[in-house]
Amino acid sequence: MSMILGLDVLDTTMSHKDKALFTPGPLNTSASTKRAMLRDLGSRDAEFIQVVKDVRRRLVGLGDGHEEYTSIIMQGSGTFGVEAILSSVIPQDGKWLILINGAYGERMLKIADIHRIQTVRLRTAEDAAPSPQSLREALEADPQITHVAVVHCETTTGIINPIEEYGKITKEFNKIYFVDAMSSFGAYPIDLRACNIDYLISSSNKCIEGVPGFSFILAKTDVLQATKGLARTLSLDLYAQWEGLERDGQFRFTPPIHTILAFRQALLELEREGGVIARGARYKHNYETTLSAMEAMGFKPYLHPEHRGYIITSFHYPAHPNFDFHRFYELLSEKGFLIYPGKLSHADCFRIGHVGHLHSADVKGLMSAIASVLKKMKIKLTE
Amino acid sequence: MSMILGLDVLDTTMSHKDKALFTPGPLNTSASTKRAMLRDLGSRDAEFIQVVKDVRRRLVGLGDGHEEYTSIIMQGSGTFGVEAILSSVIPQDGKWLILINGAYGERMLKIADIHRIQTVRLRTAEDAAPSPQSLREALEADPQITHVAVVHCETTTGIINPIEEYGKITKEFNKIYFVDAMSSFGAYPIDLRACNIDYLISSSNKCIEGVPGFSFILAKTDVLQATKGLARTLSLDLYAQWEGLERDGQFRFTPPIHTILAFRQALLELEREGGVIARGARYKHNYETTLSAMEAMGFKPYLHPEHRGYIITSFHYPAHPNFDFHRFYELLSEKGFLIYPGKLSHADCFRIGHVGHLHSADVKGLMSAIASVLKKMKIKLTE
Repeated sequence: MSMILGLDVLDTTMSHKDKALFTPGPLNTSASTKRAMLRDLGSRDAEFIQVVKDVRRRLVGLGDGHEEYTSIIMQGSGTFGVEAILSSVIPQDGKWLILINGAYGERMLKIADIHRIQTVRLRTAEDAAPSPQSLREALEADPQITHVAVVHCETTTGIINPIEEYGKITKEFNKIYFVDAMSSFGAYPIDLRACNIDYLISSSNKCIEGVPGFSFILAKTDVLQATKGLARTLSLDLYAQWEGLERDGQFRFTPPIHTILAFRQALLELEREGGVIARGARYKHNYETTLSAMEAMGFKPYLHPEHRGYIITSFHYPAHPNFDFHRFYELLSEKGFLIYPGKLSHADCFRIGHVGHLHSADVKGLMSAIASVLKKMKIKLTE
Repeated sequence: MSMILGLDVLDTTMSHKDKALFTPGPLNTSASTKRAMLRDLGSRDAEFIQVVKDVRRRLVGLGDGHEEYTSIIMQGSGTFGVEAILSSVIPQDGKWLILINGAYGERMLKIADIHRIQTVRLRTAEDAAPSPQSLREALEADPQITHVAVVHCETTTGIINPIEEYGKITKEFNKIYFVDAMSSFGAYPIDLRACNIDYLISSSNKCIEGVPGFSFILAKTDVLQATKGLARTLSLDLYAQWEGLERDGQFRFTPPIHTILAFRQALLELEREGGVIARGARYKHNYETTLSAMEAMGFKPYLHPEHRGYIITSFHYPAHPNFDFHRFYELLSEKGFLIYPGKLSHADCFRIGHVGHLHSADVKGLMSAIASVLKKMKIKLTE
């Protein structure tokens, strides 16, 4: 009897077919990742401490496992983690050089400004990457710069910035190097040492395919150790967070236990899929399927091919009088597919993500839905 | 066939009997609260926006629903929310008066210090509450004070501070009043207007019985509206977070979607139980059962009766040569019960929580387990 009751309840919960999320995140996750949250663990109990230890070890492994690196989990969204790095690893007289070609670079600048930290900006248009040569010139021009920050995949457009080349130059000048790999880590191989990275950040709900609730930071241990006491907040003190985790495996403040349990399961599933290479290949296949179908329907991608990545793609609004993004979005949503609005300053675009627990059939489903929505909106873009 | 497979998977996950958490939180939650997380929603999709709106409305209702109040959800643990309030609602020349009788009051002071905000402290011993008269004197002595902060239930000891009396005096002096009701809100009735509260904070994983991942703030709307631009961080900017939620119902930065879905379910279950009064009565019954059984076994509570609440109780280590807290804790843990260590500066205590999805049978289970562990440790405290 209780078995049957149990099933009834379960059916109610799970019969709900959620929409496919073609967004930059939060993303679709596997059913088993979500089921890992069906527990209650004490935040200071041995079992949870073991889970955290395992997660932290696996994260360093995903950055190629060099022993001079460590990892830190930080409660909150990705932005909380970015603010933790920007505001707690730089001394009072330090200066950030921020490379900017989209909204997430701009946000870094905003954070540094709020904390009254000195900055230099190296800005390009959103459809171009700051050149390594311009980075070199900026570092030559201002010896006061102590730290360099850049976004790997700017989801504003989907552009991939050349973090390895930036890293070489940054190290030539002996500066601290921070890479925001929020939406690329787990899908693009990143060898922390080869890229000369001191701090890298990503979040639980991106390419690892966990649920949202925290960001994680990979840090060069000796560089991090030199930052004790530099933080400008209590909650976002990166060093203190690390020190707490190292001391007794516990968080200073309540961790999102269920989110971390889901993340551990997601890490196991990433490994089972074949790691970063296999996951990147699946996403790349999603991207290629999307691009060719979209181009066949007459849509134009925003970025030149050399800048494109396989995380998310921006498409221009089609130049057709019947096109209305809001209606396009709603009709796709009704069919069970969520795409994403644009975030560009100078062009009308929408975005389609290629990441998360999405496979070939999901992408083909979205492409058919777009074809049928165009028909319904009486939009014909090709002859 | 797929039905049977589904069941198998479920069995694997749920057959795990988790420990009962007699801690200050994170707490045990109902199975249905956890099952509400078995979904993937887009953070900017209409369905999730509706959930957030519903949650925010219900939260104001729990503070007695006066229309001059609003609510804000803040990513991260409770401390992140406390830091958001302390650092983003006070101007550069403001001064916090902080009432302190435990670790959470001390933490407020630490936060204000990191942000270089001026403070005055009103400290008492951990087994006493700052008197309303001493608050009056502190406000008379220093007209520079602009804001007053106090913890309602200091889980350091479990003491309940008289927030309504403090509120009356604070308003007489026309100061802004902030109550940290982290571990009491949802279990003690708090009428925001009657207590003259401007800001109240609690978190998802306390007496509402949700899972950890965010804090929430109830704020007097016109007071909050006057704080635009005062924040000292981007992530923890309370006004900007509220403004974003009010504008389009969306979070500025990725919200912990699954945690919020669980919280909505937890709010529905709180209502079904009979609201704050009924929940408080269940916890009080847990407390009374615990206290009488513990006293019968020879344990002594730390606080005098007039200061005790029904959230968590501190007990002195028994004066018996065989008592070793670590062993006591481990033996109880092996039996499936997690209690909590003490956090006091001047006395050796441990704590037993009375909150979360725990009922009479759970409390009786813990009491039998304690009796049997004492026997195993060869400790006899009574004749």
